[in-house]
Amino acid sequence: MVDEIEDPEKHSMEYISLTTHGGQFGSNPIKMNWGNKDPLERGPVIATVKHGGQRNAIGAHGGGYCIYTALAVAAGELNPSHIPNLNKTMPTDKLGPHPTWFNPKALVTIDPWGAMVTDVFSPYYNKGYDIRPTIAITKAHIDFPEVKDAMREGRVKPDGNILKPDGQTLVTKAAIEPVWYLPGVAERFGCTEQALRQALFKETNMMYPELLTRTDIKLFLPPIGGLTIYMWGDPQTIPDESIPLTVRVHDECNGSDVFGSDICTCRPYLAHAIEECIKEAQNGGCGIVIYYRKEGRSLGEVTKYLVYNMRKRAEGGDQASEYFNCTRNVAGITDTRFQAMMPDALHWLGVTKIDRFISMSDMKYDAIVNSGIKIVERVPIPPELIPKDAQVEIAAKVYVGYHGGEQYKVTEEDLKKVKGRGTDQY
Amino acid sequence: MVDEIEDPEKHSMEYISLTTHGGQFGSNPIKMNWGNKDPLERGPVIATVKHGGQRNAIGAHGGGYCIYTALAVAAGELNPSHIPNLNKTMPTDKLGPHPTWFNPKALVTIDPWGAMVTDVFSPYYNKGYDIRPTIAITKAHIDFPEVKDAMREGRVKPDGNILKPDGQTLVTKAAIEPVWYLPGVAERFGCTEQALRQALFKETNMMYPELLTRTDIKLFLPPIGGLTIYMWGDPQTIPDESIPLTVRVHDECNGSDVFGSDICTCRPYLAHAIEECIKEAQNGGCGIVIYYRKEGRSLGEVTKYLVYNMRKRAEGGDQASEYFNCTRNVAGITDTRFQAMMPDALHWLGVTKIDRFISMSDMKYDAIVNSGIKIVERVPIPPELIPKDAQVEIAAKVYVGYHGGEQYKVTEEDLKKVKGRGTDQY
Repeated sequence: MVDEIEDPEKHSMEYISLTTHGGQFGSNPIKMNWGNKDPLERGPVIATVKHGGQRNAIGAHGGGYCIYTALAVAAGELNPSHIPNLNKTMPTDKLGPHPTWFNPKALVTIDPWGAMVTDVFSPYYNKGYDIRPTIAITKAHIDFPEVKDAMREGRVKPDGNILKPDGQTLVTKAAIEPVWYLPGVAERFGCTEQALRQALFKETNMMYPELLTRTDIKLFLPPIGGLTIYMWGDPQTIPDESIPLTVRVHDECNGSDVFGSDICTCRPYLAHAIEECIKEAQNGGCGIVIYYRKEGRSLGEVTKYLVYNMRKRAEGGDQASEYFNCTRNVAGITDTRFQAMMPDALHWLGVTKIDRFISMSDMKYDAIVNSGIKIVERVPIPPELIPKDAQVEIAAKVYVGYHGGEQYKVTEEDLKKVKGRGTDQY
Repeated sequence: MVDEIEDPEKHSMEYISLTTHGGQFGSNPIKMNWGNKDPLERGPVIATVKHGGQRNAIGAHGGGYCIYTALAVAAGELNPSHIPNLNKTMPTDKLGPHPTWFNPKALVTIDPWGAMVTDVFSPYYNKGYDIRPTIAITKAHIDFPEVKDAMREGRVKPDGNILKPDGQTLVTKAAIEPVWYLPGVAERFGCTEQALRQALFKETNMMYPELLTRTDIKLFLPPIGGLTIYMWGDPQTIPDESIPLTVRVHDECNGSDVFGSDICTCRPYLAHAIEECIKEAQNGGCGIVIYYRKEGRSLGEVTKYLVYNMRKRAEGGDQASEYFNCTRNVAGITDTRFQAMMPDALHWLGVTKIDRFISMSDMKYDAIVNSGIKIVERVPIPPELIPKDAQVEIAAKVYVGYHGGEQYKVTEEDLKKVKGRGTDQY
């Protein structure tokens, strides 16, 4: 196998082609056998600029940060032929492999080997290939203010390991950049691969013609944010169904997660999940929070603020009955997060059963369960944690199908009665 | 002028062109006169898919979230001919215009009219054009835990307006998506426009060939995150040099800003800045925090964690003397944030003088001052706020030129002595 690896091309890239075509002279992408059990048979993801025709992915590493890499080259500050020194960067914890890694339908937005590249693709490195990790795993000590409050209020007690007496809590964390297997993503969306490629190309005003010209290349590294997994307890226990597992799937909301805006429940729910993860880990189990970069339901923050203004200025006031209508009015759709892609992170971890799922979202629940993972208990946000102006969000969501459990019941009349802060108190 | 506006094209886009060329049949971008004082003479930014040859920007709206918009179309959930209903979405506060808006060199990464599009481009809307805001301005009530601690500890007192007795603080906030004027961005980088376009195209593995084929189109909407401006006090006072202004420029760090990792000073410094902004606003001035989506110095979170691991495993331990070397080893460069673009947000607000600049960064200071804005006082992070494992960061930064004021002095010996937590206490 090793003898079959061709020497890496090292292009100076003086000649710039507007797009490449499969089968043309010089186009010889490293073979990609998605889902193959043997990583060397599976093949490395080659997405750096320097290996010319051997590149086997459309797009570039780093998500949208590839734009900044390009600026660095333009400014003369980054040598485009730099090869990363990955010495001593390997994961603090070896996660996987798991059976899902060998199911080409189970993981279609993550390269399962992404953290282990220097290890499993060493024959390529020895030949001089520049292969980048798309996953990095490290550890951290965390000062989370709400956890310290919880300690002070007696809801959680330090054990000296998961939670220290000074309120710090220890985690293992994994940062993941997206690697899309286009045939698999298309299947998740119920469309053909061609329709997916065409939509990606057209609706972005022609980003990456290779989406159309290189049907031989099945991988796409989209310029989007990735995800981060926070784990309390021992990650090696995750696949063991006899050991309890608490999970929250959290989609980014900068206004709340960082700044604490009271119009939504995002950070309080996250804080509650972290508290529950700490307790689960203290009980010998594992707690996981997965943080996805999907600001404003993947519509972005500008759309989000336009919607806030429309809500607040509505003739009847900020009514729960208009919550989703406003987004639909501005964006043409209420949600573009596409939870169907989300369970990949759980499958990458080897999760097969979640004991406590800290989320009310029916979309997240359905996506996880439909992907084959069992969920035992669904944990809504405790009512006392809902910020002042977030009743509208909760009422609107429970009414359309979010899991309210016993604490939340919303009728059609409630929907009109629940109102947010008026513009006079803006 | 209004009579000169041609009817909008409404393409069904059945025919897919791999790239477009200036001067070809059907290519007639709406004229863009960057920096022109009259917005109608300046021209709207047309970047939606539906207006075919009239599009005058490369790229798509929403930063990287345009990928999710494409998925929504592929999934059949978003009608590509949807035109946003922007009724009642206009800003809560009218910010600007300012003289800098008419200086084509002062703003090159923001469309100054981006929040006012429905107002200043109404003749276009009346003709049926789909023009999207790239800025949205709203208000919020914020529950920031460290502010509540500050109240409890007596460092800040509620006034009932900026800071309520329950600890909530009121802000005006603006979300901004990037609109790049390529000739201006090139000038910031000291390279030719052609070199910039070529680097953007090549180093991203051929994203947007129009960067090369459409030199007639000067605008680029890159698939990167934008920025958010938080303002305490009355934003109308910002351009008035006689009224005090406190500013922090903050580059995103999810691990600290949201989760509180103790290896860096990001969230504590942000919290300190918010406290100072509240006090400045209570004094009749204005406090501003600008939050840029530049995770890990725009290298991304995967690179960040690889560097953490390299630091912790270094033979001499996690020494301040190796802080930047580790990043250089992995990424080939220590920082790709390019602060030269950052002052645009300040110029958009009409800032000409900052009384208290809550940052130690020499790069940020130099960029702001070189762009013509005066800075009076530089405020380092109070030493008691530095988290347990963040002494390495501070020492390394002060040594290479970050402003340490009186509190921080770092010699070459200090650099070797200051060490972070070891792997045994990981």
